[in-house]
Amino acid sequence: MQIFKGDLIFTPTPQGFKTLKGGYIAVSKGQVEGVYQKLPALFSNFKIKNFGRRLIMPGFVDLHVHASQFYQAGVGLDQELLPWLEHYIYPLEERFADPEFAREAYARFVEELISHGTLRACIFATVHRESTALLFDLLASRGIGAYVGKVNMDCHAPPGLQEVTAVSLQETEELIKRYGGHPLVKPIITPRFAPSTTPELLAGLGSLARKYHLPVQSHLAENKAEVAWVQELFPDQPTYAHVYHHYGLLGPTPALMAHAVHLTEQEKTLLTKNSAAWLVHCPEANINLKSGMMPVRELLERGINLGLGSDIGAGHSIALYRVMVRAIQLSKIRNILEPPRAPLTTAEVFYLGTKGGGSFFGKVGSFEPGYAFDAIVVEDEALITAGFTLEERLQKFIYTGGADNIVARFVKGKRVDCGPGDCY
Amino acid sequence: MQIFKGDLIFTPTPQGFKTLKGGYIAVSKGQVEGVYQKLPALFSNFKIKNFGRRLIMPGFVDLHVHASQFYQAGVGLDQELLPWLEHYIYPLEERFADPEFAREAYARFVEELISHGTLRACIFATVHRESTALLFDLLASRGIGAYVGKVNMDCHAPPGLQEVTAVSLQETEELIKRYGGHPLVKPIITPRFAPSTTPELLAGLGSLARKYHLPVQSHLAENKAEVAWVQELFPDQPTYAHVYHHYGLLGPTPALMAHAVHLTEQEKTLLTKNSAAWLVHCPEANINLKSGMMPVRELLERGINLGLGSDIGAGHSIALYRVMVRAIQLSKIRNILEPPRAPLTTAEVFYLGTKGGGSFFGKVGSFEPGYAFDAIVVEDEALITAGFTLEERLQKFIYTGGADNIVARFVKGKRVDCGPGDCY
Repeated sequence: MQIFKGDLIFTPTPQGFKTLKGGYIAVSKGQVEGVYQKLPALFSNFKIKNFGRRLIMPGFVDLHVHASQFYQAGVGLDQELLPWLEHYIYPLEERFADPEFAREAYARFVEELISHGTLRACIFATVHRESTALLFDLLASRGIGAYVGKVNMDCHAPPGLQEVTAVSLQETEELIKRYGGHPLVKPIITPRFAPSTTPELLAGLGSLARKYHLPVQSHLAENKAEVAWVQELFPDQPTYAHVYHHYGLLGPTPALMAHAVHLTEQEKTLLTKNSAAWLVHCPEANINLKSGMMPVRELLERGINLGLGSDIGAGHSIALYRVMVRAIQLSKIRNILEPPRAPLTTAEVFYLGTKGGGSFFGKVGSFEPGYAFDAIVVEDEALITAGFTLEERLQKFIYTGGADNIVARFVKGKRVDCGPGDCY
Repeated sequence: MQIFKGDLIFTPTPQGFKTLKGGYIAVSKGQVEGVYQKLPALFSNFKIKNFGRRLIMPGFVDLHVHASQFYQAGVGLDQELLPWLEHYIYPLEERFADPEFAREAYARFVEELISHGTLRACIFATVHRESTALLFDLLASRGIGAYVGKVNMDCHAPPGLQEVTAVSLQETEELIKRYGGHPLVKPIITPRFAPSTTPELLAGLGSLARKYHLPVQSHLAENKAEVAWVQELFPDQPTYAHVYHHYGLLGPTPALMAHAVHLTEQEKTLLTKNSAAWLVHCPEANINLKSGMMPVRELLERGINLGLGSDIGAGHSIALYRVMVRAIQLSKIRNILEPPRAPLTTAEVFYLGTKGGGSFFGKVGSFEPGYAFDAIVVEDEALITAGFTLEERLQKFIYTGGADNIVARFVKGKRVDCGPGDCY
């Protein structure tokens, strides 16, 4: 049993924060037993790890991030999605054919991710089997939770990235067999997006998802030109979402769809009925590539599963807490334009970036009983928060804090940010 | 004569960057003599300060920032302007009656400002004479350039902040006499905003501006409720801008007006004709308080003087380079809504945050001959920019960099970030 003490803050629901000033959290085998304002007598014999007046909050969950695009973040954002892919991203991804390049780039990405408190992530690698395997190994060695996808693309790709369909499927299956058994870092089926996959590849990936009971991640309705292109390429499908659905890539197994900015009514209905679907809001990326604004409040009202994504490198902030700020800001602009729907609150975006996204991993992202103890400890004294409530201190951190304020990171009760003996 | 070498980047015009890889900059008595790809023979006897492959760029100019609101940044942004002032800001500002509180708060603010490379700023203090004097002294001791305003408010203020008109004018004049002669830190007339100033106070402040040839700073048309309130309070004036104009606070002396989100056609015409007027775009604050979106591109096309403001504490980023990012992002959203007007480019926002805002200080914000050598040196190796052009490296810095990447800061050729003997 582990007992932690500190100023606890988390969101059991999107409606508000639960806070315990000087509260206790009991953890057994990596799972939360309970949180307590006064420590129950039955725990009185255990040693307490006392974090004093530091904030203890759930670790962040990034549901959409391209590990291979980290070097590009913040550069070339004067272009929209399709030319940006051509001019910047594909040439960068081609470099991941070189395992040495990949090893260094992925190592920097993973350290940066962890430093900012993201402890679970759904990650796109590239089409390259060997460097994708390196990313699996690296994440596993660092102890955080992740789904990692070898990207599949067998058409409309530059020569250096375009795969032969059968080889794409075969290499995907090899990685599934190799990494399927890991407790924290798992494979996920990852067609890049409908335009870069033939019907044959989509069908094959759908079969793999069913055969191995694997989740799926891809992109959906990010940009208007992209949506028009999909309609042209798949004239038999009524909508973009139906392309994935048709091939078993949007249900029956869990599926993450990033962006969903330009959904039709028919797509919203399909997603509302589909409890296996998660949508990922990537506000920073959607502004940077001038894609548009996801109707977040409406999708929440429909009860669709929702989380947040940094979408590095279209998004430039790997810090998910800053992505939360951008989600609030974008919702305020939507509210100016469509006044009846309220902007997102701090509690709502915090929920999306912890428990909302965490639900894709199971019981992750909260401090309720049975949840994995994934947590970060925030020292906010340097942010000058004396006199503020716990919720205000959390606001201060997400708006103005940084990696330096995070002084400890736990995944399933185990510290992931220092060597054995270095610290608790 | 000082000679600096490095990768130079600046914006002589909003249309694009001027870059010199491994270029030289010659500085005489704090002013730029010229930039050179090859050092002219006449400078060959001077010692060169070689910054290698680091970027050398103009220091940032923040045209609108409330030093007294720094502690509030990032907290309570679920409210709009008027309730946010009542609930959070006025109680905070009341604490500046205590010089000890002010001394610590202002010291933290100034260090943070300098650390992020803002080397010129137009600053609101509070109504308090003594703590405002402390801010003058502090800025002067740190060597950066600033206009500092004791705030004036004699109505619609909480008891702790409301001034007696005559006393407000008298204390303002005292500070003008005391600090008017400083070469870098100067007084500026600062009516908080029209609703918190009586006609008598406005008239008195207009007289002071003319008597001492002083510039003016205030707020204009930030929020719709505020605009309606001004119309109610000043029924004889056709617009909000005309209130200031009528009292000599928007011309004849230079005047900075922050926000200008909700301008009428009549106001735009008044501002277009008025070469003494500068508008300040505060994108972060305008989103955070759900005020709206300034029509930046239109105002640029009209030829109105324009700069950027962090507007701490409605804005939460004291880093002006991040305010530049937000200006680009907001302009992209405007472009989605009003497609004919293009979004702002990186060069345009960089211009606004350096030479555009710098023009309020004279020849500041560029490396053209005759400009003050206000500069920051950016070490971007840790941001992983190998292979990028100078412009791309600058993008990487403004989107993903931080204070840690800034390794030297100069104002008028003098370093302001280390003690004598510590460094060049």
